[in-house]
Amino acid sequence: MDLSQLPFTELLRAFGSNEPTPGGGSASALAGAVGASLLAMVAGLPKPRVQAQGDARSLAAAATGAADLSARMAALMNADSDAYNLVVSAFRLPKGTDDDKRARSERIQEALRAATETPLDVMRACEQTLQLAKVVATFGNRNASSDVGVAVELLMAALRGARLNVDVNLGSITDKTFAGTVAREAAQCLADGERHAQAAISQLAVER
Amino acid sequence: MDLSQLPFTELLRAFGSNEPTPGGGSASALAGAVGASLLAMVAGLPKPRVQAQGDARSLAAAATGAADLSARMAALMNADSDAYNLVVSAFRLPKGTDDDKRARSERIQEALRAATETPLDVMRACEQTLQLAKVVATFGNRNASSDVGVAVELLMAALRGARLNVDVNLGSITDKTFAGTVAREAAQCLADGERHAQAAISQLAVER
Repeated sequence: MDLSQLPFTELLRAFGSNEPTPGGGSASALAGAVGASLLAMVAGLPKPRVQAQGDARSLAAAATGAADLSARMAALMNADSDAYNLVVSAFRLPKGTDDDKRARSERIQEALRAATETPLDVMRACEQTLQLAKVVATFGNRNASSDVGVAVELLMAALRGARLNVDVNLGSITDKTFAGTVAREAAQCLADGERHAQAAISQLAVER
Repeated sequence: MDLSQLPFTELLRAFGSNEPTPGGGSASALAGAVGASLLAMVAGLPKPRVQAQGDARSLAAAATGAADLSARMAALMNADSDAYNLVVSAFRLPKGTDDDKRARSERIQEALRAATETPLDVMRACEQTLQLAKVVATFGNRNASSDVGVAVELLMAALRGARLNVDVNLGSITDKTFAGTVAREAAQCLADGERHAQAAISQLAVER
């Protein structure tokens, strides 16, 4: 199912249903996609506060970058549900014989690693988008400051929400090298994202 | 335009476009609606951790309440854009004569008050939904803890985002009594919401 093609009310119904997907991972990607779109909007508004040609170029690059990241997160909204559905299928594999059990375990672990990569990708995309938020907060039309503020809130919620989904999968992953590498990157991503968010918000406050 | 009927990719495009709406106010309502739907989902899952009949009743009431609040916020996503479009129209009224100016000013103020009520309604809905989040965190299926965590993140982002939209309108409102009343309620709503969110998150941590 392509969630991103559903009318919004249908998408809400899907999040509210008892089906295993879509869940919090897809909801985080969705929030990130909306935050990135808001930033792209502000970056493209007339009357930017650019002084040098370099400022205008940075803002134009932020507009394109934010639009691309929004599309990437919309795709990750689907990818997260697909990845989680594979985890559910793996858990339903037969476990009659020792061979069955071994094969099932391997498939579960494989599916869990894939289902961890997706929210990690959402975290990476949110971190990159928050980096652009500072540029938009600095050079974008000041009348849209509250839109930048909302974008930062949504992107931070998406980043933290995706982190919860990374963590919940890591708890069941037996490959400790993989788990350690992912945990370190997730922690770094969150810290970087928080730093960018603070920088963007300080910039909005300065410019009032 | 009924935003809630748009396919999600179209909705993203609308947020990213240069048109005055939808903007951060609608994006906040959207995030709140998704958070509420996730809570409704968790509240309806099998294997809740209810011990007494009262627990089951509280959880069932939270499921219905969260679904209703989700629908209300989806409607507020539209209402916020409609209200802001009226502000934009009021600013475009003629200002040739003194009478024109007076009429225009009145219409602008009227539209701004309405455009302030909508994000305030989003704040109220988020605060009420966060109250339900504690119930869901306490009694819902523990395997869905990360979904409750994501819901709380989205609802807090929606609450803070809606607050930014209340504040930006209050800055232009000349009726100081109205502005004072709204500012007090918004501050209280935010404080209550943060308290509920903390309680829900503590509950999730206890139950691990």
